[in-house]
Amino acid sequence: MRPQEIIAIKRDGKALSDGEIATFIDGVCDGTWTDYQITALIMAMFIRGLNRREQYSITGAMLNSGTIMDLSDIDAPKGDKHSTGGVGDKTSLIIAPLAAVCGVAVPMISGRGLGHTGGTLDKLESIPGFDVNLPFATFKKILKKCGFALAGQTKQIAPADKKIYALRDATATVPYIPLIVASIMSKKLAEGLDALVLDVKTGSGAFIQKYAETLKLAHSLCETGKTFGVNTKAIITEMNQPLGRYVGNSLEVYECLKILRGEADDVMQPTLELSVELTATLLVQCKVVGSMEAAKDKIRRALATGEVLERFRLNIELQGGDPKICDKPEGLLTKGLTKVAVIAEASGYIGDIDSLIIGNAVCEIGGGRLTAEDSVDHAVGYECIKTVGDRVNKGDELGIVHCRKNQSTHIGEKLRSAYKISRDITRTTKLVRATV
Amino acid sequence: MRPQEIIAIKRDGKALSDGEIATFIDGVCDGTWTDYQITALIMAMFIRGLNRREQYSITGAMLNSGTIMDLSDIDAPKGDKHSTGGVGDKTSLIIAPLAAVCGVAVPMISGRGLGHTGGTLDKLESIPGFDVNLPFATFKKILKKCGFALAGQTKQIAPADKKIYALRDATATVPYIPLIVASIMSKKLAEGLDALVLDVKTGSGAFIQKYAETLKLAHSLCETGKTFGVNTKAIITEMNQPLGRYVGNSLEVYECLKILRGEADDVMQPTLELSVELTATLLVQCKVVGSMEAAKDKIRRALATGEVLERFRLNIELQGGDPKICDKPEGLLTKGLTKVAVIAEASGYIGDIDSLIIGNAVCEIGGGRLTAEDSVDHAVGYECIKTVGDRVNKGDELGIVHCRKNQSTHIGEKLRSAYKISRDITRTTKLVRATV
Repeated sequence: MRPQEIIAIKRDGKALSDGEIATFIDGVCDGTWTDYQITALIMAMFIRGLNRREQYSITGAMLNSGTIMDLSDIDAPKGDKHSTGGVGDKTSLIIAPLAAVCGVAVPMISGRGLGHTGGTLDKLESIPGFDVNLPFATFKKILKKCGFALAGQTKQIAPADKKIYALRDATATVPYIPLIVASIMSKKLAEGLDALVLDVKTGSGAFIQKYAETLKLAHSLCETGKTFGVNTKAIITEMNQPLGRYVGNSLEVYECLKILRGEADDVMQPTLELSVELTATLLVQCKVVGSMEAAKDKIRRALATGEVLERFRLNIELQGGDPKICDKPEGLLTKGLTKVAVIAEASGYIGDIDSLIIGNAVCEIGGGRLTAEDSVDHAVGYECIKTVGDRVNKGDELGIVHCRKNQSTHIGEKLRSAYKISRDITRTTKLVRATV
Repeated sequence: MRPQEIIAIKRDGKALSDGEIATFIDGVCDGTWTDYQITALIMAMFIRGLNRREQYSITGAMLNSGTIMDLSDIDAPKGDKHSTGGVGDKTSLIIAPLAAVCGVAVPMISGRGLGHTGGTLDKLESIPGFDVNLPFATFKKILKKCGFALAGQTKQIAPADKKIYALRDATATVPYIPLIVASIMSKKLAEGLDALVLDVKTGSGAFIQKYAETLKLAHSLCETGKTFGVNTKAIITEMNQPLGRYVGNSLEVYECLKILRGEADDVMQPTLELSVELTATLLVQCKVVGSMEAAKDKIRRALATGEVLERFRLNIELQGGDPKICDKPEGLLTKGLTKVAVIAEASGYIGDIDSLIIGNAVCEIGGGRLTAEDSVDHAVGYECIKTVGDRVNKGDELGIVHCRKNQSTHIGEKLRSAYKISRDITRTTKLVRATV
């Protein structure tokens, strides 16, 4: 069947057969479909919609466009966490060693930052020498040795998704749930998992901001995972302010090490709290423990002994990074950066902090990418001092921009616009909104 | 505005402003919009629709993406005919010299054949030496000297349309009236016309087959023409059999010369009849005469004197072709072709002849193009012996395929399937269905 014939079916609002979807995905991989034919069909899918069967079919076709990891010789249950992307969202770096110490093997394939959200790979690369480009054999060896491994999407994993995602990003076809689900799940299912826990973000800093839509996304992700035989759960969490203290690559790794060292301050607490919640869910899903309470007990003990930090150190060594940062996290903080304070213009209580504005500002000073080809400045970022619900006085520091000298002019102004200050308390944060 | 932002507006079903449409068309021309962004927006336009204001806006933007011919120093009224494309539709070759002799200047920009329909340029190129690639200065000189000129779309004429049309063809977004209208009219309006007559085809061999849709297209073309200040009329004509005797490039030129020489046989009559109808309409539009009757009188006299054939001869000379074919049209018939008769399998009356099947069969033996890059065999084609309403006996010749030796195997079978023969008369042809 020619591309035009398949495109015309969806153009006219009819459902595509499994065979037609397979022909499309094959064509994406072998180049018989041009980029402009791919985007024409994707736009028709976006507007006309995909039914559940079509959505499973496209997920399966994208999954099978690459290889599925064979981890059958690893005895431990295989589990992973995936986040739909937020601002200051750094829990992967805590969850991976934490779950590993608690008995779950975590084969974590991550992405890079794009737009206002950060990416785990960029964060890891702010550790000197850390290598995220691992051939599968090395990835598996590291996974066996330390219980988790952290790498980027290779050409072998869901190559169709990689191509389609880049085209969707350029053609305003990202925010459609069945395509989001197919994209996420085709990659995660390739990890050969027993269980997957999803952190689905809602609010200003999330890709999907409306709560009802977030809920729909979470349900669809879970149903798709189960259809493909993976125990899948989703936790819906608020992105009405950045998560934790720091936004920015090195700064976020610093925050994680402080937490693993038991040195977390108040502003860092939500990062720890959310990491514990997600890891506990995963432990229950993997039947390592029988209840959330038991899981949280196990997690607290693992953190207290320092074993999790040691496991992270082992991973850094195995992936070529400098393990000394575990002893001196301050080594991650680049010297000579300019610090610009963001000052409260009025007294009152902090309502929502628009994390989209903060994510975009950090992107603008080089901490993120506007296009996939951009390079990233690992050093720069933003530090939250006050958080939602805090009482502030006019002139107080709300946060601090860590930037390069020439960037200090307007960035403070822009960041101040992210803060809503009102005379009365209008908002408190409930990190976890729902479990699906 | 970034392409993504403009695409998102139409994706969500909202109307685009004139400025947004201009940004899009500018981006098509200067390459800042990629092909895959163009097709994403075109698909969104196809599904979500364009209102009348948007359709005029895109027509105007495509028109202004190139230059509009300045023919103000030609005193005669400027008029042209355009057909939406049919099988055996060769009237341009008769109308251009005929209208010129009757006092209308015809600056005719034509296209090449694509799919099952033929193109005037391919037909003209079967005349040895005939050059359709004319720089504007040459085109205008020829127009002044003989009252008409025939050339292909240069890079200067509606370049945005050229690019968009090729992409629509590859992405199943051709059959949408506002885009068809914008494509046709942006090119025709670039000719700097006073009047335009459109031959809008309906039936099996037309791009738009349903009568109601054809009527909509005709109305939309006329309204658009008038909006841009050109007196525009449309005639809806039946494509329920090929027009005239021949389908195929050389063969069609041969038919036209036979007509201009006053040697038309019965099967060729509809070609003459339709050419007269369209030319008469144009003469009235251009106020050369006051009524259709007066126009047809003028036309018959012009044909009878042989002046029209002489005008065509002058044009062939001016455009580098061999004028001797006017004296010996048989010189256009290639020797050594294989002739395969298509035989009636039953006795009865001929109902519709599926011109889509005939057009595709001629395309298949090399007479047309499957893609814009294909070359064309000018010699091959199909000859209609019996037409709609004719009484035939089993074993009679319905038509003759003129093809190359190795092509004779299955083509007769395929062509026979185009004919419906029934015991009673089910259909007679009414060439002109309506005037808009």
